[in-house]
Amino acid sequence: MSTLKNDLLLKAALGLPTNRTPVWLMRQAGRILPEYRAVRSKFDGFKSFVKNPEAAAEVTIQPVDILGVDAAIIFSDILVVPEAMGCDYQMEEKKGPYFPKTIENEDDIHALSIEIETSLTYVLDAIKITKKALNNRVPLIGFAGAPWTIFAYMTEGSGSKTFTKARAWLYQKPELSHLLLQKITSATITYLKAQVASGADLIQIFDSWAGILSPALHREFSQQYIAQICNALQPLAPVTVFGKGAHHAIEETALLNCNVIGIDWNMEPLEARKLGGNKTLQGNLDPCALFAPNEEIKRLVKTMIDQFGTQRYIANLGHGVYPETDKEKVKYFIENVKEYSANLVAKNNLIISA
Amino acid sequence: MSTLKNDLLLKAALGLPTNRTPVWLMRQAGRILPEYRAVRSKFDGFKSFVKNPEAAAEVTIQPVDILGVDAAIIFSDILVVPEAMGCDYQMEEKKGPYFPKTIENEDDIHALSIEIETSLTYVLDAIKITKKALNNRVPLIGFAGAPWTIFAYMTEGSGSKTFTKARAWLYQKPELSHLLLQKITSATITYLKAQVASGADLIQIFDSWAGILSPALHREFSQQYIAQICNALQPLAPVTVFGKGAHHAIEETALLNCNVIGIDWNMEPLEARKLGGNKTLQGNLDPCALFAPNEEIKRLVKTMIDQFGTQRYIANLGHGVYPETDKEKVKYFIENVKEYSANLVAKNNLIISA
Repeated sequence: MSTLKNDLLLKAALGLPTNRTPVWLMRQAGRILPEYRAVRSKFDGFKSFVKNPEAAAEVTIQPVDILGVDAAIIFSDILVVPEAMGCDYQMEEKKGPYFPKTIENEDDIHALSIEIETSLTYVLDAIKITKKALNNRVPLIGFAGAPWTIFAYMTEGSGSKTFTKARAWLYQKPELSHLLLQKITSATITYLKAQVASGADLIQIFDSWAGILSPALHREFSQQYIAQICNALQPLAPVTVFGKGAHHAIEETALLNCNVIGIDWNMEPLEARKLGGNKTLQGNLDPCALFAPNEEIKRLVKTMIDQFGTQRYIANLGHGVYPETDKEKVKYFIENVKEYSANLVAKNNLIISA
Repeated sequence: MSTLKNDLLLKAALGLPTNRTPVWLMRQAGRILPEYRAVRSKFDGFKSFVKNPEAAAEVTIQPVDILGVDAAIIFSDILVVPEAMGCDYQMEEKKGPYFPKTIENEDDIHALSIEIETSLTYVLDAIKITKKALNNRVPLIGFAGAPWTIFAYMTEGSGSKTFTKARAWLYQKPELSHLLLQKITSATITYLKAQVASGADLIQIFDSWAGILSPALHREFSQQYIAQICNALQPLAPVTVFGKGAHHAIEETALLNCNVIGIDWNMEPLEARKLGGNKTLQGNLDPCALFAPNEEIKRLVKTMIDQFGTQRYIANLGHGVYPETDKEKVKYFIENVKEYSANLVAKNNLIISA
């Protein structure tokens, strides 16, 4: 189906049989590896690092070489989109992102650009360099934030437990909220199409702040914009939708033109299967479980795969890997997924496509 | 059923018919009222304020007088329990709680006291003063944090988005975790029994950090300790269990010896009814909705009551009211619950017990 030597992730995403469960980790590039920190230390700030295509490509490939994951995900940040639209951010060490000037009114929205492709050449270049260096070993995942999550940062101005200012927009200025969300959506579609054209094999949409919306607000201000992105992208590449905390939206996400639904660690795999229709599911080990002794990690991987099943399934954590995680534990997790799922497939005598 | 002039909350908690839906707000005492801030300003720090029974009683009663809520909730903090056990905290303005010395090992756990009643006389005195001053106008709610939430602060040392250190305990030191959780549970039961003996008419258990646990961890490290508290307290007073973010636990909570299940704003009322058995439900308007125009608040209240129904229901927000909320909006919310639910009961010709 492709020139990829390891196409397990794409097969699983498309619902095709696999001889074991593919595995990768959210945030696998750019958090846990000493090899990453060595590259990172050559740059003054996070942003100069992110904007260097060679460095981004290098840390993107590291987990494939070092950890043995079944996919690479381009090293970048969801906030490059608001920046390219004209809403600049700063990344403060240990404090997270900060927007000196938030979006306050209609004029601010009209001033935003949706023609962001040229401002993001550095990401597209990083994808091209990575693709070449990967030499078809594994697929490359491209990504963007979901429009609601980007909106939340642009209006709130920083991370927050409650994003009160962002959510107040939805209640106080619903029309303006839709105007801004539509602009973010249009820009994101342009950006993701360019990622695919540059070589991304699969696209993941991260709705990191989906979980702070009520089901009704989520439907009105998040889901319909994700749907637009799925409709535009799925003809070009498989699409994964990961709405962290949006347990109530799984059934609705199963109706979208996406291929994979990301599941966080707050949901039982059996429940996710019940609600997720025939979509491929991705997740959902608690990132904190990688602090457990090996024996417990082995047990948790077994339970997870027993419940999700080996097919139409991509093993992952339920959120990004925590920075302080020991890379040996990550390797142990990955090896266990591979070994246990392969044995289970063999045992169940599943038919494997060549 | 009691000498209370307004016993709507207790009737609803016990599943008895009411001629309208009772309403109160989590954090109604101690956040939004200028009258609260006037009392608060007389004290140097949060802790000297909390430890003054007269002042605590005064701000407890303010929302009854000013907002017209159907219950008072004693002004205090869930962290008075770890402090009384010997694990001291500091409350930093705008930064939240901070524990200079966290629980690290078995010795630390053995050093903790569970005979905390005498250390918490100030809360019991505040309850007695409040009861007298309320003069049976409305019921008084007592409360405590759920053992897992208290454990999370004692081991993490501060608030956190992920409570990684606290959750790592559960994976790395499960036996010690159970030892600490059991001590917190025993102390909490002593404390809540004393609250009831001092005059609290209903008890609410706040599991504020339930939502960061996987369903399996929640079952093992949170739910069973909440169950112990319910078993000990329900013979004395009705009990409400509020596990924020623990959408997966509603069905299991419905099997506990509690009377009311608190629902956050991430769950649809119809879904909560489906999973909540025959328990009374409490919640769940998004606190952010109180930033909306009045017309929208009216619409949201109507939808909420239509979905929960007027009976076996206590109207509330889905979490604590936000500090910056306009008190006129809070009053509008309360008035709308009262008026709309009363009309609906009358319309449906429900039989009202005298």
